[in-house]
Parts: sequence; structure tokens; C-alpha cells
Amino acid sequence: MNMSLVKLEDLVSLTKRRGFIYPGSSIYGGLSGTWDYGPLGVKLKDNLLSSWKDFFVDSRIDMYMVDAAILMNKKVWQASGHVDTFSDPLVECRNCHNRFRADKIDLKKCPTCGFLDSFTDKRDFNLMFSTKIGPVENIIDKENNSDDESLIYLRPETAQGIFTNYKNIIDSFYPDIPFGIAQHGKAFRNEISPRDFIFRSREFEQLEIEYFVNPDEWTEKFELWISLIKQWFSIIGLNSKNIHEHEIESSERAHYSKRTIDFEFDFPIGREELMGLAYRADFDLSNIERLSKKSMIYKPKDGKPGFVPHVIEPSFGVERLIMAVLSSAYKIDEINGESRIYLDLPILLAPVKVVVGPLVKNNQLLVDKSKEVFELIRKDIKDVVWDDNGNIGKRYRRADEIGTPYCVTIDFNTLEDGSVTLRERNTTKQKRLDFKTLVDHIKNK
Amino acid sequence: MNMSLVKLEDLVSLTKRRGFIYPGSSIYGGLSGTWDYGPLGVKLKDNLLSSWKDFFVDSRIDMYMVDAAILMNKKVWQASGHVDTFSDPLVECRNCHNRFRADKIDLKKCPTCGFLDSFTDKRDFNLMFSTKIGPVENIIDKENNSDDESLIYLRPETAQGIFTNYKNIIDSFYPDIPFGIAQHGKAFRNEISPRDFIFRSREFEQLEIEYFVNPDEWTEKFELWISLIKQWFSIIGLNSKNIHEHEIESSERAHYSKRTIDFEFDFPIGREELMGLAYRADFDLSNIERLSKKSMIYKPKDGKPGFVPHVIEPSFGVERLIMAVLSSAYKIDEINGESRIYLDLPILLAPVKVVVGPLVKNNQLLVDKSKEVFELIRKDIKDVVWDDNGNIGKRYRRADEIGTPYCVTIDFNTLEDGSVTLRERNTTKQKRLDFKTLVDHIKNK
Repeated sequence: MNMSLVKLEDLVSLTKRRGFIYPGSSIYGGLSGTWDYGPLGVKLKDNLLSSWKDFFVDSRIDMYMVDAAILMNKKVWQASGHVDTFSDPLVECRNCHNRFRADKIDLKKCPTCGFLDSFTDKRDFNLMFSTKIGPVENIIDKENNSDDESLIYLRPETAQGIFTNYKNIIDSFYPDIPFGIAQHGKAFRNEISPRDFIFRSREFEQLEIEYFVNPDEWTEKFELWISLIKQWFSIIGLNSKNIHEHEIESSERAHYSKRTIDFEFDFPIGREELMGLAYRADFDLSNIERLSKKSMIYKPKDGKPGFVPHVIEPSFGVERLIMAVLSSAYKIDEINGESRIYLDLPILLAPVKVVVGPLVKNNQLLVDKSKEVFELIRKDIKDVVWDDNGNIGKRYRRADEIGTPYCVTIDFNTLEDGSVTLRERNTTKQKRLDFKTLVDHIKNK
Repeated sequence: MNMSLVKLEDLVSLTKRRGFIYPGSSIYGGLSGTWDYGPLGVKLKDNLLSSWKDFFVDSRIDMYMVDAAILMNKKVWQASGHVDTFSDPLVECRNCHNRFRADKIDLKKCPTCGFLDSFTDKRDFNLMFSTKIGPVENIIDKENNSDDESLIYLRPETAQGIFTNYKNIIDSFYPDIPFGIAQHGKAFRNEISPRDFIFRSREFEQLEIEYFVNPDEWTEKFELWISLIKQWFSIIGLNSKNIHEHEIESSERAHYSKRTIDFEFDFPIGREELMGLAYRADFDLSNIERLSKKSMIYKPKDGKPGFVPHVIEPSFGVERLIMAVLSSAYKIDEINGESRIYLDLPILLAPVKVVVGPLVKNNQLLVDKSKEVFELIRKDIKDVVWDDNGNIGKRYRRADEIGTPYCVTIDFNTLEDGSVTLRERNTTKQKRLDFKTLVDHIKNK
């Protein structure tokens, strides 16, 4: 078996061809840095999100979910520091007018037109998308028609939608501490150069948790989160060999953080950050307290003195998880002298669990029996798909390529003894089973 | 039982207090037209979305889901007509400079400052939020630094993310016709006057399906969709008495639509549109064909001549569904001479299914036994919550107010014979059950 990592272009090609991920607005030539999920991508993403939610939220009694609006009052981004400092250094070539991230290229010579020393000075380019809210068009000629009152941003992270709801959660639920607030949602960053498939896009999804703790116990809870994160990586099928804990040194950490770990992954594009676990102390709540003039103090139920909680933040990017899952799962082996591509996805993530079809489709009895088996399985198992196109070998390969764990084939023996063929993705082994025991057999896996 | 409709302010108050829905950015004084979901709102919404997906997508074999980016190439909105015509008439008072939707007020006298004849002429105000994509800041002094190249919009509807992926779905899946493409996601409209709680907000979620049919069979399929929509309304607990089919007359329909039905609902704010079912013919695909120069022809598998499919569009707004569900469920009755508020939510939508707690919390044996029962139920049933605060009567009221179908109370008899009290929300009736049969009993409901 070939264990080498998939090439990025092969992954992009498979995911497009088979309906996982398409370039955004592709019918009109695209829109750089945006991607659309096709039906299999939607399923894979949903399965991944469910797994995150089951593990980190629903199975626990100390977690609260919120779903805050993408459009937020701009004070949020003033308090968080994004308005002042969320920027990348931008340069423009004076010759061809292409623009680049100054920290990603050699500034001697323009990579597009080749001109020497053609770049402008670096400028901070803020990565937040801005828009205007409310009816701000100029109706009466006034100088202040485009004032800043209406300027807002698309959120560049979901975390601030958690911090701004901290007080709401305290007021509605008065949870015991420690407790966490979790959020899944879109975020937007106007990257100068979106690149590497879905790794760095301008629109993406985040899974963020702010875990509020008594400042005395942050070290202990931080360790707990490291272990939880590793457990979950194993649940979603990521090989621990490909995951690297990168302890960020104090000189590289944000000033308020006493500890940050980047979990890096061996992506097709190299070792890159998959997710981050950061101790943010009371940085965010204290900023909100200052700007909103509202107290962020948590009052313990035992009557002890109140305090502003500190937070531990495990922050996942959905697209990076999907890219890690898909590149881990992408396998090539050889079956009967022919090369085969399959996705070795964990069953819980596979977008299709079972493909059902007749051995041949020109026999009505066989087709009818197959439909019966199909409906039987579909009643108990989600994501069962019908396929009667082409010969059985090609169907198996199609199922393999999207990571389908099981194929069920109905043939002439089925008509006589009720047995069907169950074929397993990774081993390609086939066994005959009574179709009535099929559902239990598959469910046991 | 008082069957009168809930007042809007009571609904807003309950949903905020109990953690369903908070005003957006409330910690900073808000951002008009945005709302944040709290933990119970997230659950209610998730349950509603799951029900929609189960019924309209997963239980069928002719449906494909996509999840397109919010940021799309601006040609999408040129083709769809949104750039030219998606606007409301805006006027401004020359005295106080407040702005209004001209079709919603009496233009004689400003409703804010009271001035007579103070309004400007009407102007079309486009409701799409716009932003700029890519590094467009002025670096070199050039006249074209703010050219239109980079102008894009936040999508004002999810439907176009479906139409732009029609060809991708055909290429990846080659479905039999009729087939549908479904999408759930955010949409944004810069309303001049957002109002009526979540009914008309600037950021909201849609559940849209484009059902692609042979033009010959649209009338028959349209009828089918009417009946499906009604079935689903009943599943989510909407009373058919409160739903009104409003057949849109030809003079009010879009020019390309031969039939449109608005399903209206008796909201606390009056009878208003809940969702729409529209026959859009080939309007959207033909526009895309014209602007993209790519063929939208579907080629039937039986070799008959190809055609551009026509579409039937059932389009739901998530916030309006939630408002309909909550206002239907909001009930006031009288228990032992005291007025009681409860949410009569269908079990499948209730954010919390079971509340468990000890009769009193100052007895460790009772608390331990209660925890044991709590863990037992939680193993098999989702959304089970612990509550040991205050007296049992208050706990029941708290559970009623968020629509919890069942409360389980552990008392001193439990320690002796293993029996617990199961209390039902609507009837407030209590019965004693062996705690071992509890899970099956609840699951049967």
C-alpha cells in the first residue's frame, strides 16, 4: 500500500469531480478565495461538525452553545484590537500593479512581471471585510453622507461572538465555573493571496470554544484540553504520527498569553497549523469591560469573592479539518494489478455509508429485489445510495473513491436464497449474508 | 385554557430571559436588525433544521444539498436582477434627516420630528450589503484605486448559490429529472427599517430548494409541493387554522412566474408571509446561460431532446419559522389558581427533553441517587438537563417556560423502591414509575 501523502492537485481534482468541493462562483469564472460545498462535502462537513458537537458540547454538562450574528457592532473589533492590528504587510509592484504579501515573497524582484526593485513600501492592509449598515446612500447633498457611523465589519473570527455573549449566558443560566461557550459559524478574512485550496480562503468556518476558568486553575485545565483535543483527533481518523504539538515560545506569543500550542499537521502543502489552543487570560473580557463599562465579574455560588474569569480557547478551522481528514484518508493501492484510489474515512465521517444496486440492471426481478433491499436498509441507516450504473467493478471503484465503507450487491442467488454480497471498502473483501441480517451486521460496525 | 396569541413583547422578553434569542451586539448597545441565538435558541433552531432536512432532503432520493459561499462573483447578482431591481423606496426628512421606507409611512408628515412636507423625493435604495474583495487600498496614487472590479455583495438570498451550482451537480451526479438542490445558509438584506423582532432582520437564515422539472410536468409537481409543505407544517406543530394559502394574482406575480403561493401565518404582528412557493420557469437558468455563455440544458437519459429545466422553489426563512413555532407554542393557563406560562412545543423541537433533579438538595443520598438517574437517562436521550435549584414547583415552572416535555424528580421513595416521579408539561400530571423503565417510557413518546 502506498502511504505517501496525496498531492494537492489530486485532492482538488477528486473533490471537484465527485461533488465534495467546487471553486466558488465557478460558473462565472470564480471568485478567488471562496469555495462551495457539493452534496458529499455537505455530508462530510455535517458529520465532522456533529462529531465535534457530540464530543465537546453535548456529552458534557458544562458547555453552552451560541450562534451570534456575523454582523457585529464595530466596537467589538475596536475592543479586540482587530481594527488597529489585524493586518498583513502589503506591497504593490509599480510596474505591473500586482499586489503581494510582503512577508511571503522576495522583495527584490516582482514574481509576476520580473521587474527589479519595483515594489512600493510596505503598508498595513487590514484583513477585515467592511460594509455599511443602514440606508446610507447620499440623498441630500451633505458632507457627512459617508460618515463612519454606518461602517461595520464581517467578523474575522467567531470567538468575539462568544465573549460578547458571556454576560447573557451568565444572566440566563448562571453556570457553575468552569464552563465553556461554544460556537460554530462563518468568518471572513480578506486575504491578500488566498491559496492552497481550502487551507487559506477568504470565507471559512470556525469551531471555537472559550472555556472560562478560575485564574487559579488554568494550568490544570489547559492540560485537560490538550488531552481532549488529541482524543478527538483520533475519533475523526487523524493519525497521531501526522500531528505535531508546537509549543509557542513566549517571544512569539501574544503578550497576554502565558501558553499557546499550535497543533500542526502534515498537509499535502507541508506541515502547517491545524488548530490552536491558547490561554488568553482575561484579555478579552477585560477589554469588553473597559469599552462597554459593564462588569464581567463572575460571582461564585459559594459566596467567595468574584473575579473576571480567564479563558482557554481551543479553536478549530473547519476547512483545515476537512483538508486534514481528506488528505489522511486518500489512499492508493493495487487491486488485481490495477491502481485504485480510495478514501479511508472513518465510518462516522463517510458521506455515503452504503451503496446498493443489482448485479445487472436488465433483469426486472433483480431490480425489484434490489429496490426492496435498498428500502430495507434505508429505513434503518442514513446515507444509503442507489447505484446501478455501469458494471459492478466500476461501481465499487466509484464507491471507494468517495470513501463508502460498504457496497451491497443483489444477484441471481439473492432471488433464490435471499443472500446478498457485502463488500468492504479497505480490504475489498466480499462476503455473502442473508439480506435480513444485513442491517444489524452493518450497524454493528 | 387561554388560546389567544402571545404579545410580541412577551415573546421577546421570554426568549431573551431564558436564553433563546438575544439582541445582537447587546453588550455594546446593539446593532439594529441583528440577533444572537443563545443555547436554547441554537437547540431549537438545530431541531427545526434537522426536521426540514429529514423531511425534504434525507428521506428522499431526488435531493442534493449544497453549501455555497456567501461571497459570490457579482455577475450572479447582475444575472439575477438584484443589482438593478432589489431595492426599496427610500426618503429622508429634510428637517431631522431620519430615513424611511416610503411605502411604509404617510409621506405628508415626518413620523419622527412631525414636520410637514419635509421629505425628499423617493430614491431606490438597493438592499444588498456591498464590500470589496482583495487588497484594494490605495497604495500608489492612481485614479482607478477604487474601481468596481473588487465590488461584491453579501448574498441577499441562498437561491442563487443553488442555481450557480446546477451545472456542477449535473456534472458530478447526473441525476434523473425531476431532482432538487437544497441549501441552508445565511442571507443579508440591508433593510431600511428592520422591525418586529426576528421577523425582518438584516441577517437571517434561509432554507431553499430549487426543484428542477421537465416543463411539461410543473403543474403536477407544484401541487405535490403544496401538500409536502402542509405536511411539514403539521410535523413542526403549526396549527393549520393559523396558516393561510395566499394565491398570488398574476398582476402581482413576477413576470416569469405562472404561479406563486405565499403561505401566511397569524403572527403576533398580524397575518404575514411565513414562506413562499414559486414556479420560476427557466428564468434563473436562462439568465445564467446568457451571462455565463454556458449551456444549462439537461439531457434526459432516455435520449429524448434536451431542455432547460423549469424550477419550483419552496423557500423558507428560518427566523420566521422560529417565530411561528414559538408563538404557536406560547400558552398561558391556570394551575391551582396561579397563572402559568408554558411552551407547547412538539417533542422533536423542544430544546430540552427532560429535566432531572432531587426533591430537595440537602440530602446527599438523594442527590447521589438523582445523579445516577440523570446519567442513566443521559446515556440514551439527548438534551437532558440537571436542575436542583429552588423548590420543585419553581423548577417545574422553569421547565414549562422553555417547553420541556418531561420532568423527573427523585425523592425519598426512590431510595426505597426505585420509583421516580415523571411529570408531563401540558397536563402537569405526575405519575410514579420505576426509574429503570423511565428511558423506554420517555422514548416511546
